[in-house]
Amino acid sequence: MTRIIAFSGAESGEWRVLASHALIGEGLPPVAAIAVTEEGSAAEPATWRLRGAISNTRYATRAEITALQLAPAPLARPEATLAVLIPIRKSQSWWELAQDERRAIFEETSHHTRIGLDYLPAVARRLHHSRDLGEPFDFLTWFEFAPEHADDFDRLTARLRATREWDYVEREVELRLVRQASA
Amino acid sequence: MTRIIAFSGAESGEWRVLASHALIGEGLPPVAAIAVTEEGSAAEPATWRLRGAISNTRYATRAEITALQLAPAPLARPEATLAVLIPIRKSQSWWELAQDERRAIFEETSHHTRIGLDYLPAVARRLHHSRDLGEPFDFLTWFEFAPEHADDFDRLTARLRATREWDYVEREVELRLVRQASA
Repeated sequence: MTRIIAFSGAESGEWRVLASHALIGEGLPPVAAIAVTEEGSAAEPATWRLRGAISNTRYATRAEITALQLAPAPLARPEATLAVLIPIRKSQSWWELAQDERRAIFEETSHHTRIGLDYLPAVARRLHHSRDLGEPFDFLTWFEFAPEHADDFDRLTARLRATREWDYVEREVELRLVRQASA
Repeated sequence: MTRIIAFSGAESGEWRVLASHALIGEGLPPVAAIAVTEEGSAAEPATWRLRGAISNTRYATRAEITALQLAPAPLARPEATLAVLIPIRKSQSWWELAQDERRAIFEETSHHTRIGLDYLPAVARRLHHSRDLGEPFDFLTWFEFAPEHADDFDRLTARLRATREWDYVEREVELRLVRQASA
């Protein structure tokens, strides 16, 4: 079954906000923390809430899925105390492309999947699809890594943002987070 | 912007139910009529409500999109007084396939897109994506046609149901509808 995840920006939550940057277009209202919950669970009051579905892979080929499975990087590893939430919206012209055109930009030109593979298993990543939920962003990507892999994360995102695929990004926010010590 | 459409089965509505068949798996509770509304508009009480997003194309190549655009078949043509709603759920094994595997079954093997082209512009069709909304079905397909093209519709669905893609369908309901005369 499809799971819908809510990222709630609020006064408190499991993940404390270290920094929030509007990279392309409008940012998000400032919040102190982010709570990550499954839709249907009790929702605390929040300044904003972004939702996305954990869906099937859209562009990955069997060869790529096999490569991804060889370097599993689960979320919630105890050492992965840093996280980054990157909400993205792509332009109308991206969504009007045909599947073969999108895939050509995404993979043969931008090497998106292969770039991600270079940083596994250090940087765990989960993609959430928001566009079909009528949300303000198309994708919410969630990353988790240990502090010693923060440079890996920066290299990963720098390489992705230099690709042709990113020409189609019209809104991008980056929220840097640290897991709160348990009470 | 993504539009989410709701199909509400109720006592009254624009489309009167002529027949409801459970083709694979469980059917839907019987209703007299179907109302089609955009999410956000006022919702009348309903026995059940199925929701789907009008999304970007997922498998169509540029060549196929061009062919589709050469035979435009809009909804709401006055002569198209018959409609059919077909909710479908595909199996877990379908969703675990990679993009190249799904596309191979969908197109190179099943010729899904080309079969649909054979019945344009007689049979208008709109696909709604439901899976990422956490709905009980993955897709809701809506067809509209004039009574003289009812045979075309039957041939179209018979050909699709004979394809290898349909081996992955684990629930399918067909609701045959007629537009109510305006009051």
